[in-house]
Amino acid sequence: MSDSRPQSSQQLFTEISSEGQLSVSCKTVAIPQPKPNEVIVKIEAAPINPSDMWPMFGPADLREASFDDENLILKAPVHKSMLMRIKSRLDQALPIGNEGAGTVVAAGDSPQAQALIGKTVGVLTGAVYTEYACVPIQACMLHNEGTTAKQAASSFVNPLTALSMVETMKREGHSALVHTAAASSLGIMLNKICLAEGIDIVNIVRKQEQVDMLSSLGAKHVLNSSAESFKMDLFNAINETGATLAFDAIGGGDVVSDILTAMEAVGSQDAVGFNTYGSEANKQVYIYGGLDFAPTVLNRAYGMTWNIGGWLLMRFLGSLDIKEVLALHKRVADEIDSTFASNFSKEISLKQALEIENVAEYMAKKTGEKYLINPSL
Amino acid sequence: MSDSRPQSSQQLFTEISSEGQLSVSCKTVAIPQPKPNEVIVKIEAAPINPSDMWPMFGPADLREASFDDENLILKAPVHKSMLMRIKSRLDQALPIGNEGAGTVVAAGDSPQAQALIGKTVGVLTGAVYTEYACVPIQACMLHNEGTTAKQAASSFVNPLTALSMVETMKREGHSALVHTAAASSLGIMLNKICLAEGIDIVNIVRKQEQVDMLSSLGAKHVLNSSAESFKMDLFNAINETGATLAFDAIGGGDVVSDILTAMEAVGSQDAVGFNTYGSEANKQVYIYGGLDFAPTVLNRAYGMTWNIGGWLLMRFLGSLDIKEVLALHKRVADEIDSTFASNFSKEISLKQALEIENVAEYMAKKTGEKYLINPSL
Repeated sequence: MSDSRPQSSQQLFTEISSEGQLSVSCKTVAIPQPKPNEVIVKIEAAPINPSDMWPMFGPADLREASFDDENLILKAPVHKSMLMRIKSRLDQALPIGNEGAGTVVAAGDSPQAQALIGKTVGVLTGAVYTEYACVPIQACMLHNEGTTAKQAASSFVNPLTALSMVETMKREGHSALVHTAAASSLGIMLNKICLAEGIDIVNIVRKQEQVDMLSSLGAKHVLNSSAESFKMDLFNAINETGATLAFDAIGGGDVVSDILTAMEAVGSQDAVGFNTYGSEANKQVYIYGGLDFAPTVLNRAYGMTWNIGGWLLMRFLGSLDIKEVLALHKRVADEIDSTFASNFSKEISLKQALEIENVAEYMAKKTGEKYLINPSL
Repeated sequence: MSDSRPQSSQQLFTEISSEGQLSVSCKTVAIPQPKPNEVIVKIEAAPINPSDMWPMFGPADLREASFDDENLILKAPVHKSMLMRIKSRLDQALPIGNEGAGTVVAAGDSPQAQALIGKTVGVLTGAVYTEYACVPIQACMLHNEGTTAKQAASSFVNPLTALSMVETMKREGHSALVHTAAASSLGIMLNKICLAEGIDIVNIVRKQEQVDMLSSLGAKHVLNSSAESFKMDLFNAINETGATLAFDAIGGGDVVSDILTAMEAVGSQDAVGFNTYGSEANKQVYIYGGLDFAPTVLNRAYGMTWNIGGWLLMRFLGSLDIKEVLALHKRVADEIDSTFASNFSKEISLKQALEIENVAEYMAKKTGEKYLINPSL
């Protein structure tokens, strides 16, 4: 263990008080002595993902936010009626930032930890909006020589989600899949994986420019849900691909039901007799996001062999053994600049991440726009 | 093979023409020579279950129905707009009647078939609204000496559904369950099974008299969904029982979402920190009926570990091996007059089943009222 390790770190924390006030602040914390299987990573790049935003700001009214430049605290009110829903987190200063990347600057005594010194690693800890992070080596993804922290910033959430969706498809016996909100970074990765593996994917997007963008990457089936012909297009694409599985990032509205309805229409098109319970294949939709908070509305016009459920990356990864996880890590590391390349629209410091005008911009979650925090700035 | 076997049978058939006319008729059909593993059953009791009604009448407008007494045909119009939805069945005369019971009067050459001669059996064939049914022995449930056909009429659908729900609960690792529309015949059986096995069940009904009825059978948790306190009652009952599984017969409306919301509130009541993805236990609702055709509305306020899906008895039974199926049969046969006792409000002939006033009554699907067809009348 080197004695030259850094002693303290600037780190972002979020807290909502039971009086209804959000405070997101930048504090100085001590860096612990790493245990044998831990390393200290100097974080140089950490994306602000959609999945970071709810922990960071909760249901606060950001239109009323103010930033105290001297004490580095963003404050915003939370309506009292929301507090019951988030009671598990009240009055606790909680670290934030799901994933990031940087250089290992110190390590615990184990040979595995020592071997990482000087390497670029991606980390998944839920506390990476910090200058220095102390993380177990199991939460590190080792990158190849030459990969930069910025390239490695999004090593986990999107790449492993895309790979895990394809893996879920294979394990559950489906042969093609449908993806909504498909023009996202994740959607682009998913298309690259499917193209490379010869898997048919039906992409659903909302705008013609997103159709054009995915088509230019080689995607065969890209449907515009705003088009009048959408339901017929969906039937045709599912008929051509045989997809019986969908991953939905939207959640609200009719899209889940529309997908199942099309799958049933395809599955039952040659049925004879009563067909009371519909087609036999399991028609599965996993909801993995909630871009639309409106209720999900199911017309149930798809027989009796269908399932809808929440899908969570960490739960899927938990079902894998360590060898399978490491194989996924290796694939991400090897293809971090191609299949799993991420684009960031702006790089900001920890302090800038609390500035009102930046918050307003990254909270807009525009497709193709993503902020990167660089705590070393 | 006896030569005294009956030669012909009166049998009900249903047909919807592509011009939009429903005909449910009583026809004379020849009885085939049974194959080695088949038996001829003289059907003496066959219930009209909710699951028989859609095959029998489809989406016909029964307010416009007429009955031709001489030719034994009930006719009713089907709106043209409905025909696409049921195109798999158009212009085919299809047999009806899922289950029934009677006496084996002839048998194929195999010893297993011959051994059934003279016995009372329940049968599940989808074609039991007939005087004589030729059925494979695998579709027979052998009843004990002394059991009557009327007692055995409902040997399959409700008893095996109730047993399979409990079996599903055990296999999927849940320890208690919720049941909606719980005052049904099925619901009563389910309560008897749960009481006998010491399993906690949360019953949801709509009326105080149904609360009273189930309570009088010994049910501990019976909630009235019409009560103002329903959501709090549901939370409390799920909290006491730890139920993470529900079977829902209703389908439409908010009840599925209400159940998941209560399960999540119970599962997360002691959570600390963000709890972004909600409680860890899988919260599962199976929809097995559709008493309410309205859309299912999901508020998705239950984290990411939940599933909703169709549940089908035949698919569950198909996942069992033959020994497990026979064990279920034996239990039903042994408890046909206690746990699995059915009550019938009226016994009618094949012809009477087509008479307008009877159709109107049994189509009303009133809780506790069930018609029995006795083709030997």
